Amino acid sequence: MKVKTLWAVSGGIAVALLFGPRELNPSQTTNTEDASRAAILAVLSAQQEAWNRGDIEGFMKGYWNSPQVTFAGSGGITRGWEPVLARYRMRYPDTQAMGHADFSELEVYPIGKDAALVLGRWHLKRASNDVGGVFTLVFQRFPEGWRIIHDHTSADANPR
Amino acid sequence: MKVKTLWAVSGGIAVALLFGPRELNPSQTTNTEDASRAAILAVLSAQQEAWNRGDIEGFMKGYWNSPQVTFAGSGGITRGWEPVLARYRMRYPDTQAMGHADFSELEVYPIGKDAALVLGRWHLKRASNDVGGVFTLVFQRFPEGWRIIHDHTSADANPR
Repeated sequence: MKVKTLWAVSGGIAVALLFGPRELNPSQTTNTEDASRAAILAVLSAQQEAWNRGDIEGFMKGYWNSPQVTFAGSGGITRGWEPVLARYRMRYPDTQAMGHADFSELEVYPIGKDAALVLGRWHLKRASNDVGGVFTLVFQRFPEGWRIIHDHTSADANPR
Repeated sequence: MKVKTLWAVSGGIAVALLFGPRELNPSQTTNTEDASRAAILAVLSAQQEAWNRGDIEGFMKGYWNSPQVTFAGSGGITRGWEPVLARYRMRYPDTQAMGHADFSELEVYPIGKDAALVLGRWHLKRASNDVGGVFTLVFQRFPEGWRIIHDHTSADANPR
């Protein structure tokens, strides 16, 4: 039950490429899975770039534009693309609050061919204080591309 | 893009049966999906019962018994069945700390036929203080049954 982990860099994001028993198809990583991983990492990279130019709407393009998309955290569950956007706007009203985002320690686990579980760490470097924690994302493949259908984000209890 | 929600009770747990576009197979809920939902809810019900008799090892039977199972939260990511058990033992050293658990507002979204995303709310009623929050679970079907392969749990910032 060993997982082979290779660290790589994709669009400025350090990424763990995992090939292990956690995949539902445990045999071999396929070209399709590689392509899915690359597409998912491109979405996250675009989100990070949008965030870092203060563009929350651009950041939100990574999420499924649906009333059913969900965001879970210490505020409970926020449901729907517009409410999730409103939550981000409330918590990060300006570029000072947004700071500079880094996603790291990303792990992508395909679930079948149309979904994936992604784990990772987020960090915001800010003039006032840094914040960070971990996130769980469930991605789903849509005709328009891979989108986050569910996000569960936590802040570290003991900031690093 | 509407989701039909039916509230039902399974093993003492209030459950949302969701049939909507969030399912990867958006056509019709199949008998297989109904059976998967029932099996997943039975795992959660057994976990709740084990917790409420002070049996953390019994509670842990709901998790994939693997070094790759993951638990995410304000302490970062805990990896492996034994470390996840150790984390629970440390945070809930006795039945007073464990209190009485209730899972509620459960939502089960099949992802293909061998995985599911489950959202819900947890609440611990304790003599000292109540605590609660939301969780995200990813279930996978194994030969031995449905097991949690990833858990992301948050405590409410403003306890209810």
